[in-house]
Amino acid sequence: MGKGARTRATILAAAAETACLAGFDGLNLQPLADKVGMTKSGLYAHFGSKEALQIATLEYAAELFQARVVAPAKTEGAGLPRLAGVFGRWLEWPANAALPGNCPFFAGVVEFDDAAGPVRERLVRLFRDFRAVVEQLVASAVRHGHLGAGTDPAQFAHELLALRYAHHWAQGFMHDPAADARTRAAFARLVGGRA
Amino acid sequence: MGKGARTRATILAAAAETACLAGFDGLNLQPLADKVGMTKSGLYAHFGSKEALQIATLEYAAELFQARVVAPAKTEGAGLPRLAGVFGRWLEWPANAALPGNCPFFAGVVEFDDAAGPVRERLVRLFRDFRAVVEQLVASAVRHGHLGAGTDPAQFAHELLALRYAHHWAQGFMHDPAADARTRAAFARLVGGRA
Repeated sequence: MGKGARTRATILAAAAETACLAGFDGLNLQPLADKVGMTKSGLYAHFGSKEALQIATLEYAAELFQARVVAPAKTEGAGLPRLAGVFGRWLEWPANAALPGNCPFFAGVVEFDDAAGPVRERLVRLFRDFRAVVEQLVASAVRHGHLGAGTDPAQFAHELLALRYAHHWAQGFMHDPAADARTRAAFARLVGGRA
Repeated sequence: MGKGARTRATILAAAAETACLAGFDGLNLQPLADKVGMTKSGLYAHFGSKEALQIATLEYAAELFQARVVAPAKTEGAGLPRLAGVFGRWLEWPANAALPGNCPFFAGVVEFDDAAGPVRERLVRLFRDFRAVVEQLVASAVRHGHLGAGTDPAQFAHELLALRYAHHWAQGFMHDPAADARTRAAFARLVGGRA
């Protein structure tokens, strides 16, 4: 990795932390430059605008998510074990990527709810791509006979995402100490007690 | 209703609309005074602070929710019909209370996520109270034999709230045209196809 790429990676690691703690709207060039010990103009040379920095941070977080949540499935048994593994690691995200605070993608949902533009579009695509991954895992679990033959992968994926999204609410907003246990029980019910 | 109470109701109806469209943070005294044709000091005399206005608006929205979503259950058959009725009307809220835009309670979740204080506390209590209502409806459906004897009302209520919360995300953020159908299918699965 050249010096430019190293510097960029340092900035994005700091930016991802900021996004978890203060959202993407908190990604202002000056405070971030201070955090990584650069000048604002030096940081500006890498990203050019706050929006470009937000998108780069989203991409960086998506790569981390892929590496920490999705990729380990390769070493798990095909079908339901992989699906259960991904869901379990998703519950533990972003802490399992050494990120502080909350899921940056859910933070982005809130911030870009009404904000049409490239950041919102990128975030919607990230969710769609991940839902497609879940659908493939569900279809595989059906093929392996771990889930009923009548299982609709798209419907199943919607319900799985619902559980994770509700976990975010129950834990983050309601401070419900049972959020984890309820979510895992709901997952077990969703897969028919087979996970 | 005296003149003071009528004026207060007029202000709160306008404030609830604002909360649906722009969140509770959008409840500023001057624009709201303009909207209802009062002076800022006249409006101030009713609420005294933005925070007091936010709490009063939450209470007003909660009364509407009770009237439009929960109360009609009284005319429905006990057990599952009531549970299904409440869930269906919750999906149609806040449009079925003639409110524009999004659910004001979900808007509040976003805005008061990190904001400790009386508005957040009131909102958490509203969600807890409603979850308790759902738990009672589930327990009644179990007693009527509409749901399995082993159904845990608290777990069921968590999963029901998850579906509604995910609907908000799928429809409001993802603009998923299947959000309604997926949510209703998930509800049908949750109640074992008996609704």
